[in-house]
Amino acid sequence: MVNGSGNRIKSLKDSSPKKKGNAFLITNLRNIRYMTGFTGSNGALLISGAGDFFFTDFRYKEQSAEEVKSCEVVISKKDFFGFIIKFINKLNLWKILLEDTIQYKDYARVSKHFTVSTTTDLVENLRSIKDQDELKLIKEAIRRAESAFTSVKAFIKPGITERAIANRMEEKLKQEGTEAIPFDTIVASGKRSALPHARPSEKKLQRGDLVVVDWGAECGGYFSDMTRTLLINGEGLDKKREIYDIVLRANSMATRKVKTGLTGAEIDDAARGSIRSAGYGEYFGHGTGHGVGLDVHEKPYISATATKLTLSSGMVFTIEPGIYIPGLGGVRIEDMVVVSGEGTGEKMTTLPEELETIW
Amino acid sequence: MVNGSGNRIKSLKDSSPKKKGNAFLITNLRNIRYMTGFTGSNGALLISGAGDFFFTDFRYKEQSAEEVKSCEVVISKKDFFGFIIKFINKLNLWKILLEDTIQYKDYARVSKHFTVSTTTDLVENLRSIKDQDELKLIKEAIRRAESAFTSVKAFIKPGITERAIANRMEEKLKQEGTEAIPFDTIVASGKRSALPHARPSEKKLQRGDLVVVDWGAECGGYFSDMTRTLLINGEGLDKKREIYDIVLRANSMATRKVKTGLTGAEIDDAARGSIRSAGYGEYFGHGTGHGVGLDVHEKPYISATATKLTLSSGMVFTIEPGIYIPGLGGVRIEDMVVVSGEGTGEKMTTLPEELETIW
Repeated sequence: MVNGSGNRIKSLKDSSPKKKGNAFLITNLRNIRYMTGFTGSNGALLISGAGDFFFTDFRYKEQSAEEVKSCEVVISKKDFFGFIIKFINKLNLWKILLEDTIQYKDYARVSKHFTVSTTTDLVENLRSIKDQDELKLIKEAIRRAESAFTSVKAFIKPGITERAIANRMEEKLKQEGTEAIPFDTIVASGKRSALPHARPSEKKLQRGDLVVVDWGAECGGYFSDMTRTLLINGEGLDKKREIYDIVLRANSMATRKVKTGLTGAEIDDAARGSIRSAGYGEYFGHGTGHGVGLDVHEKPYISATATKLTLSSGMVFTIEPGIYIPGLGGVRIEDMVVVSGEGTGEKMTTLPEELETIW
Repeated sequence: MVNGSGNRIKSLKDSSPKKKGNAFLITNLRNIRYMTGFTGSNGALLISGAGDFFFTDFRYKEQSAEEVKSCEVVISKKDFFGFIIKFINKLNLWKILLEDTIQYKDYARVSKHFTVSTTTDLVENLRSIKDQDELKLIKEAIRRAESAFTSVKAFIKPGITERAIANRMEEKLKQEGTEAIPFDTIVASGKRSALPHARPSEKKLQRGDLVVVDWGAECGGYFSDMTRTLLINGEGLDKKREIYDIVLRANSMATRKVKTGLTGAEIDDAARGSIRSAGYGEYFGHGTGHGVGLDVHEKPYISATATKLTLSSGMVFTIEPGIYIPGLGGVRIEDMVVVSGEGTGEKMTTLPEELETIW
């Protein structure tokens, strides 16, 4: 349940030009959850001068009655979009704004009946600024994530498989209260740690391995996303320690740079410039970070292309520079940061960041 | 990894009219997995007279090299769709077929540069017929699911919460080898069992409760989907036993009806008619079944509206009638069925279906 979702429809309406016949049809499920509190897998939200209506199907009759308080719930007959089109017709609405993330087939159907235009990121932009209720949920998701990691760390040792660690992590995340694990936990060791999106394999951890663990928790629909990299004691660790220190410095440079009014690209450049000047620029191939909320990847994006996005108080995002050297291994250190009321970056994650060499 | 995906691009090309300048751009990730074996979260597949190309980004460089053998892999620069559009331009292709499930914003971008048309379910239709390799993976997914259920059943008793049972199930599914749990396990007891899509709550199981457990496993990307309903001993169980028997009979009627050439609607009618004639028609509000494969809900759909879909050998789907009585509880019995080479329905699930009254 999203707290305060009751006011969000009103805010959106107040901020939009009101014209007779105009309506906004929201189809992105995470946007619907944000606007109404509905957590099911099928729905659409119509916001219009002729009233606000949430559509879902038979399966969610009881659930939608419990969750959706800010507008009327309508249970559709079969053929969901056909039902909605007829419903809009009866309301004498003729100009429909759609999200540009809608599937083409649904866009095509609606546009046969009405004058259609599309919008980009209208609700996503609202979602990128978190209110106090949302920050509380994200903080609890982070607490669950950190508690699970602390418990699983004792289990990480030479001879155990990546898959076993990932399974243990997901058990702990559930035990901590996470209902929906936001993404499959990444555990990548040795050479495999050089794959930024490796999936846990049957590979056993070995001495000298870098071990990248990237995991998320959830609370009330809001996610956390963190990465820590451990080092297992062994031979020839100098270069691994060197790249760890470079990544840690880049993480710190980017975090300290965070300030309202700066662009995502400027924050990205703080991390990227730091790694580049250490001589490892070509080994950092992904963006520096991304927003986290009802989606685990959402606005704001902290990357070289984010030249138009300026930071505002209430934005929550990751800072996650990394260096990935084929054949040697990789390091990523990912924290979550919120832009505070004072306009600076506050780290939300509390786990230590210094390199831990285990065993 | 999908076995045999190497031949699928060739089959699709052989079955399509070849015209100079024509290309098919596949953007649905499950369709891409089916066609190429790629399991990551970003990609597009271009099939054309000028060659076949799989596009992904930096994060999946190593993974795509391992997984995609049937066409050339191209790692895109930033702005994924912009890169693909330029690439297509250089190949002198001008007529692009898109899937109608593509997001409108991507459709709009591509259609600015090329003559675009859309197709419905082109790859989905191929996917609805499983080959021997795919059936093996689905059978293993079912084995994992059944083994997990058998183990968790001993844990189901009065006083334990729905959530604890669901967590235990997901632990067992992982231990059995499931990498990606296809959907959140449903455990719904007592009155909550009347909600077909209830999520596990902190409600404790009580004497006399019907307990619906709906869970899935996975193997090599292929899913299973099953439901069993248990009854906890207590008072006043007659009506609960009665609806169980009616649902079981409906399940059996539909399964025995399965035959190549019949429509999904005819199979649905066998289950629905059976429940209707017992006087409970209004309490069975969802379709009788759905295909299962790389998606947990895919073609063929077994519902009243599936009047155009005819069954073919190799199709795999669920039969899952249910009766849901508000205030009393619900029963659903869900099996997986394959249309055999002889053209009849073979049950793939092996767990007993008779009502088990526990404790």
